[in-house]
Parts: sequence; structure tokens; C-alpha cells
Amino acid sequence: MPTPAPTPDIAPSFSTRVRLGDVLDPNCPSRVILDHLTSKWGVLVLIALRGRTERFGELRRSIGMVSERMLAQTLRVLEADGIVERKALPVVPPHVEYSLTPLGEGAAEKVGALADWIENNRFPS
Amino acid sequence: MPTPAPTPDIAPSFSTRVRLGDVLDPNCPSRVILDHLTSKWGVLVLIALRGRTERFGELRRSIGMVSERMLAQTLRVLEADGIVERKALPVVPPHVEYSLTPLGEGAAEKVGALADWIENNRFPS
Repeated sequence: MPTPAPTPDIAPSFSTRVRLGDVLDPNCPSRVILDHLTSKWGVLVLIALRGRTERFGELRRSIGMVSERMLAQTLRVLEADGIVERKALPVVPPHVEYSLTPLGEGAAEKVGALADWIENNRFPS
Repeated sequence: MPTPAPTPDIAPSFSTRVRLGDVLDPNCPSRVILDHLTSKWGVLVLIALRGRTERFGELRRSIGMVSERMLAQTLRVLEADGIVERKALPVVPPHVEYSLTPLGEGAAEKVGALADWIENNRFPS
């Protein structure tokens, strides 16, 4: 039987490349997004907004102990990535709502699975 | 039909508590572990060591652009969490190997799923 032809046009996945010992360029777009989604506050924003819409103050209370500045910066980054949608309603006083885009809901599902896995496993210390 | 009795003894999951607007104590053990597993280098260590054993230098090359100091610190934290196993072989020159514990393999599976999801989805910019 003939040997299967190599398929050099199928790139290995992100995690396979790391496992193969491939040096990951820190500017690799997927690595940049991974950094944003797994940032200290990014993770909690994703979990908090899953299936919900919240105002800035509500979100800040959900997450706990995040400064206004850090939360605002996290939301700006995730908005630029297409993960978070920011909606400013034309009212006085200003009313701004945050929710996840469909893409963001997908990311939140994966991050939520990790968080729930942690809680369901016993850790030493 | 009788109404089902409330079940106050079943605590909601980590992600449910955040979504319910529960203020998460930053010292909550699950939140601390989540911080470690999703740290900038923790994520890449988990992916790189999944199903493998590597020496410090190999691991450093797999990940790319991590300083020795940051990688050593990340490995110490993950070892204390029971995620990474450090094995020093009694030879000269010293030979130290790192691998994931069974618990670490579980965490790496969840983190790898997030990384692969990122790569399989299109992001703006």
C-alpha cells in the first residue's frame, strides 16, 4: 500500500505547536488573544457577563476588588478583540451596558469550564 | 404536586456565583488557583507539558521569550498547587525534569481547549 502523502498545508493547532516544542512568537495573534482572555480580570469579566448584560458598576461589584481603572482597561481590550459589546444608551445621566458578543459567549464557555473544573477538584494547601 | 423542597446545602458553582453577582473574595482558594493557571506563563507551561516531560531549558524554548526568572517562579507556584511535578535526578551535572501531575493534566486539557478554540475562531483586528 502506498504511504499517505504528507499534508504540509494542514497547520498543527496552537496547543499542538507548543507541545511540539515550536517557539511561539509572542506577537502571534492567538497568543495575544489568549493573554487577553486569561488576564487576571479578563477571566472574571467573561464569567460574569456570560448570558447577561451589566452596567459598569454592577460588573465591578460582581467581580470584587477590581479598581475602576483596571476594569475599564480590561473592557476596552476585550471590546477591541470583539469579545465584549459596549452599548451607550442616549440618555441623561449616561447609561452604558456591557455584554458578550456571540464570539465572547464561546470564549466564556471555555473559561467557565476551567473555573468549574478547578472548583470540582481538590487542591493541596 | 408538591413544590420541590429548596436545597440550600448545594452550593452554586464558581461561575454561577460570579454570574449571580456574588462578590468573589480575592482570597477564595478557587480564585487563587484560577489566577495561577491563567497567568501569562502558567497557561503556556500547562499546554507545553501536556503529556510530556521536559527539562527547564527545553520548556523555556517551547514557550518562547520567557525569562529564566519568570519561568522558575511560574513552575514553583504550579508545583505548590500540585499541578507540576519537579523531579531532580541524582546525577552530575544536575538534571531536573518537569511534568504535569494527573491533576495538572486535567487543568491542561481545559486550558488547551480554550487555546484551540481561539485559534479556530476569527478575531477582528
